[in-house]
Amino acid sequence: MKRRSFLRSGVVAGLAGITSPAILAGWGPSPTASPASRPKGVPDPPLRLHHAENPRGLAPAAREAIVNALPGASQYGSSARAEVTRAIAESHAVDVEFIAIGNGSTDTLRQAPQAVGKPGMHLVAADPTYGDIFRYVQPLDARVTRVPLRADYSHDIPAMRRAVAQGGSPALVYICQPNNPTGTLTDPDEIDQWIEEADQENVYFVVDEAFHYYVDDPRYRSADRWVHRRPNVIVARTFSKIYALAGLRLGYGIAHPDTAERMRTLWAGGISHLTAVAALASMEDGDWVRDTMRLKDEAKAITQSVLDELGIEYIPTQTNFLMHRIKGELATHQERMRDHGVLVGRAFPPMEDYNRVGLGLPDSMEYYGQVLHRFRARDWI
Amino acid sequence: MKRRSFLRSGVVAGLAGITSPAILAGWGPSPTASPASRPKGVPDPPLRLHHAENPRGLAPAAREAIVNALPGASQYGSSARAEVTRAIAESHAVDVEFIAIGNGSTDTLRQAPQAVGKPGMHLVAADPTYGDIFRYVQPLDARVTRVPLRADYSHDIPAMRRAVAQGGSPALVYICQPNNPTGTLTDPDEIDQWIEEADQENVYFVVDEAFHYYVDDPRYRSADRWVHRRPNVIVARTFSKIYALAGLRLGYGIAHPDTAERMRTLWAGGISHLTAVAALASMEDGDWVRDTMRLKDEAKAITQSVLDELGIEYIPTQTNFLMHRIKGELATHQERMRDHGVLVGRAFPPMEDYNRVGLGLPDSMEYYGQVLHRFRARDWI
Repeated sequence: MKRRSFLRSGVVAGLAGITSPAILAGWGPSPTASPASRPKGVPDPPLRLHHAENPRGLAPAAREAIVNALPGASQYGSSARAEVTRAIAESHAVDVEFIAIGNGSTDTLRQAPQAVGKPGMHLVAADPTYGDIFRYVQPLDARVTRVPLRADYSHDIPAMRRAVAQGGSPALVYICQPNNPTGTLTDPDEIDQWIEEADQENVYFVVDEAFHYYVDDPRYRSADRWVHRRPNVIVARTFSKIYALAGLRLGYGIAHPDTAERMRTLWAGGISHLTAVAALASMEDGDWVRDTMRLKDEAKAITQSVLDELGIEYIPTQTNFLMHRIKGELATHQERMRDHGVLVGRAFPPMEDYNRVGLGLPDSMEYYGQVLHRFRARDWI
Repeated sequence: MKRRSFLRSGVVAGLAGITSPAILAGWGPSPTASPASRPKGVPDPPLRLHHAENPRGLAPAAREAIVNALPGASQYGSSARAEVTRAIAESHAVDVEFIAIGNGSTDTLRQAPQAVGKPGMHLVAADPTYGDIFRYVQPLDARVTRVPLRADYSHDIPAMRRAVAQGGSPALVYICQPNNPTGTLTDPDEIDQWIEEADQENVYFVVDEAFHYYVDDPRYRSADRWVHRRPNVIVARTFSKIYALAGLRLGYGIAHPDTAERMRTLWAGGISHLTAVAALASMEDGDWVRDTMRLKDEAKAITQSVLDELGIEYIPTQTNFLMHRIKGELATHQERMRDHGVLVGRAFPPMEDYNRVGLGLPDSMEYYGQVLHRFRARDWI
């Protein structure tokens, strides 16, 4: 499949409700307008569409749990920490021995190579993909092979397998599923087949499922099914996305007990008691999680419709962010968006002609669509 | 100095105000009493004197800061995290490049050997001392030499220097100042002289100053003065003690920028935004910190007076905990104390005939004194 044929760029009719007069009132900032001279109607503080955050903020139940937990926050030995570990284990139908808690899933990505890695090991990862793992293998003096995504932005599993076979062992394979920043899925059959056939002693897999809860594609399944049979598979998850705890730092790895134990040894600090109680309350509030999913679906539909209408190429997403084409420099686009009260993207080389936008609340994405229309009128996009 | 002559065991007259009838009312649990049958007057939940916590709980300003920060807790990129790092740096009169944040100072103790260590390195530490470092050097396959404390419970610096000289390089020296669990200071002149004369390339020092703010001894000075001139010195501090944030997990290392940078690379997760705002508020509330010091002084005086009165040997402390002699098994003592509504100590081998008790609020220590009197009446202590 060619990259362009995979991209959707047709005009979708029927987009409605994106021209609220209140939001449009007073528009017309110049590209050089300073924040102080921003016209009325431009969001201030700006909309945070530059990270893939949950735009709803903490669940009310999480806020309440935090306030109720303040009296015990000066104490060591949070019982909530053990409870949240148990709840996580139950959600994967495994014993707690399979879970290694971290301060965000980035901490899991740090623990993983330290737990299973060897000095001089070979890291094989996609290009582009989420970048943290490259930093965390530095202390191991790892050799790194980047394998370009395929035209459909999936991991090029055959090419990654060749890279591992040719690059010597031990190897660490990093798979971001769905991939950040492209939001795309890699066929789970391909991943499973590789894990099935790989040398368990010398090839380790870190499958980063940060966006697990946002995946629509029915082909998707978690790699957590491997942890019973394969000590060389580590799955990373986070509470920063669907559970809205990005500022509170909670992630975890799921792995065979032997592997998870080595990860736990490398984790020192413990999560905050307040993080633990907030995570528990968020997990228990199924309605709130379902509402978050529904709002994300709405936001995605609005955003993709505007892009279709304007004929702007984008990569259909399996996450709560989306990559679309821009004209000219990303930095210029970011600055113009900031002038219009929207924080967007960051550079994800080599995709320099794309912008990554997080899916905010439906209203925010309607506003974003209006800004895109305005940019088109100025031939900025 | 002989160990016994250093211990204070004389009876101090004039102890007053420790027999509140309200607290004493209803006493008389049997050693086998279950919690359900605890008589009236026994604290329930029990007094937490088993950790060296701040018994006051979070500062009111910290609680308020947390509640105010809830709306931003779902976001990445906490500005409070940068602010607290700056405030910490300022408190040591260094640039932020000298600071490596951790999730509690135990995280600093994890980062330190990973940042400066080499596989097979030699760890030299006191016996007994705080135990976390031994776990964190395991991934380095470190050889470990434990050097018994001197009779005055200070680090035996000459013997530790010999151990380093004989044990090969590189060496990591762990000094807990004041020492946990003994609460005792090691002469800073001895430490400074060693750092001054040590081979900077091959001998690394981790000086754990978790109890910095509780030290009374005028000889004491922090080892942070070395970080400008010596890349082989890392000082660990915590917000768990004087700032009462044990449940919120914040500690840090102070080190030469080259060393601190390597530690930062090994730290992944970021502290919770709520931890950062609570830390900032606590640091800014000087009155609250001074009140904590004053209450600790009162609690210490009450506790040491009771021990003097009962002729129970103890080690005068430079911290917010204290080691005193017990009769028989520590486990038995702990169980009896629990039956009386007090959680105490844990085993600190080889000091099996001592109990470590945290200094709670003055009222709590008066109650503790009453329990000790009762134990004496039963010949339990």
